[in-house]
Amino acid sequence: MSVLNDKSHRRFNPLLGEWILVSPHRGKRPWQGQQEAPQPSGAASYDEKCYLCPGNTRITGDVNPDYKGTFVFQNDFPALQANNDDESSDDELFRYQAAKGEARVICFSSDHSKSLPQLSEAEIGGVIDTWREQMIELGERYQWVQVFENKGAVMGCSNPHPHGQIWAQDTLPTEAEKIDRNLKSYYQRHGRNLLLDYVEKEIAKGERVVEVNEHWAVLVPFWACWPFEVILLPRFAAKTFADVSPEQQQALASILKLALTRYDNLFQCSFPYSMGWRAQPFNGHANDHWQLHASFFPPLLRSASVKKFMVGYEMLAEAQRDITPEQAAERLRACSTTHYLES
Amino acid sequence: MSVLNDKSHRRFNPLLGEWILVSPHRGKRPWQGQQEAPQPSGAASYDEKCYLCPGNTRITGDVNPDYKGTFVFQNDFPALQANNDDESSDDELFRYQAAKGEARVICFSSDHSKSLPQLSEAEIGGVIDTWREQMIELGERYQWVQVFENKGAVMGCSNPHPHGQIWAQDTLPTEAEKIDRNLKSYYQRHGRNLLLDYVEKEIAKGERVVEVNEHWAVLVPFWACWPFEVILLPRFAAKTFADVSPEQQQALASILKLALTRYDNLFQCSFPYSMGWRAQPFNGHANDHWQLHASFFPPLLRSASVKKFMVGYEMLAEAQRDITPEQAAERLRACSTTHYLES
Ligand SMILES: O=P(O)(O)O[C@H]1O[C@H](CO)[C@@H](O)[C@H](O)[C@H]1O
Ligand SMILES: O=P(O)(O)O[C@H]1O[C@H](CO)[C@@H](O)[C@H](O)[C@H]1O
Repeated sequence: MSVLNDKSHRRFNPLLGEWILVSPHRGKRPWQGQQEAPQPSGAASYDEKCYLCPGNTRITGDVNPDYKGTFVFQNDFPALQANNDDESSDDELFRYQAAKGEARVICFSSDHSKSLPQLSEAEIGGVIDTWREQMIELGERYQWVQVFENKGAVMGCSNPHPHGQIWAQDTLPTEAEKIDRNLKSYYQRHGRNLLLDYVEKEIAKGERVVEVNEHWAVLVPFWACWPFEVILLPRFAAKTFADVSPEQQQALASILKLALTRYDNLFQCSFPYSMGWRAQPFNGHANDHWQLHASFFPPLLRSASVKKFMVGYEMLAEAQRDITPEQAAERLRACSTTHYLES
Repeated sequence: MSVLNDKSHRRFNPLLGEWILVSPHRGKRPWQGQQEAPQPSGAASYDEKCYLCPGNTRITGDVNPDYKGTFVFQNDFPALQANNDDESSDDELFRYQAAKGEARVICFSSDHSKSLPQLSEAEIGGVIDTWREQMIELGERYQWVQVFENKGAVMGCSNPHPHGQIWAQDTLPTEAEKIDRNLKSYYQRHGRNLLLDYVEKEIAKGERVVEVNEHWAVLVPFWACWPFEVILLPRFAAKTFADVSPEQQQALASILKLALTRYDNLFQCSFPYSMGWRAQPFNGHANDHWQLHASFFPPLLRSASVKKFMVGYEMLAEAQRDITPEQAAERLRACSTTHYLES
């Protein structure tokens, strides 16, 4: 038997160039710590107090239009501003630079009560259209366009109305810079795209695959950090959403609905996570080393109320996980693709 | 006015070699999201259900001795094992290696109800003695000895009995490897120790200093990530606890008590955090670039019940903070050094 199944070992994340610690034997640890509050269920389709519902007034006094489908607006409290200062310092111990950017909110649906897997494939297609349009528009002005979603109170999401965000930044952020560097190094050494090589190897192996179709695959990466982390990879070359054909986009809506339904069914709850799309840097370079992909980082470990804490050792020394990526994939594969609220 | 005070900017962490995004203007954002449960107060000095109290039986059947002061035992569910396998793979996309190590628990006090700042300076001195002994012992067998404490339910701590942990690992973990590389690069370029240079520059500037004495300083680093993060730095060369004299150790107990009392007083609660000591790698090298230090990563942002979430953008792109390090230091300096439960 390999250490991969039953002994403490480290796995290497070739995107970030970082190791993580895996403790397969630690699953039996009893949990007496913090319990997460269950996500309130049975929400109504419209909530008059929600600042994202159609027709409602936001804290700034702006009134949301009576939208159908998706709705995008500038974040009322943006972390990034279209700052015109150009200040910086190269003092090695006190180094800084002004940051220019924009932050927007995307409502996925006018229906307050529905999360992504509860939308129809056509409605999910509308969300993908919006991601694509936003990426193209903001990519004209900013190097990095980060599309993401924080889902669930445990992930710092302050409103259950289905929504995501986009933060665009003029420079490559820390994690993006690492990935750019590592994808480039692989491309220079092999003349091939790391993530295109990786996805087909995983499909051939099968043990970490959760969902696959002609154009896309969802799998628990070999180096997954969060218990049920998955990566969503195209099986064709695509640097941004602009490279995704209508047929490929339809296949994406389909695989998203299936994979996210498995997530909700795992612990019979609206599965919390942070997810995001990473596309090429919009810097005018060829970027043939890049490949569009989405990562999902869900915190739950054992049940709807017990999460994994990335704390002491993880913050100071190295990320650590208990169940193995192979065990996680097996459990996700065992879940139904019919949503538990519909069956 | 500088961007450092009022506009979005990035600051560089020279230890990790990573940037973080600062959004000083974002403090006014209203919070409608998750509230943390208050830490239960008024605990008794002894709890018959606590698996860390003297004389109690742990889940393994082991019985704790009737200890006074500190008590160390092997973690009953260790993330690292003294694994004898030597398996590894260099396949670029599926790279792994067996990990050898040990995990221990340190009870700081036999008194179930007292956290570090509520112990006397002499008792804190006893905790430091234990950290030192453990570091020396484990450093003989392992390259990296991570002493840490997860405090509070929100930081994944499953038992309020005051305790910390030590995980020792045969290889340099991810974050330690980054710090080792960056400290070495500074030393090679300047012939000086980065953290020794840094601490005196900060003391001269003053604006980020929280607490200082002849031998140590506690300050909010220029590149702090968590809202009230601090770093505890020696003002003398010390690669491990073995380099700390009795007088310096007494000054450490004193500054720890003062700084942690400020923490508890900030929001009048038992202030949650993950903290840890980073000492040199125990690899037999000279390591003159190294300097012992402790980091404290506390999650609370606005009150005892509202924390900062490091989620979507932070996980995918770059760590982000709202209030500035200078504002955080000012608020900590304004806190009393008499514990709120004692005044
Ligand atoms: O070892 P404990 O206290 O059971 O567990 C806690 O600290 C560990 C080390 O930071 C983390 O890996 C766990 O997620 C956390 O719950
Ligand atoms: O922008 P929101 O939803 O108010 O805030 C949430 O997402 C942000 C981006 O990941 C985080 O910085 C915040 O800590 C989190 O609460």
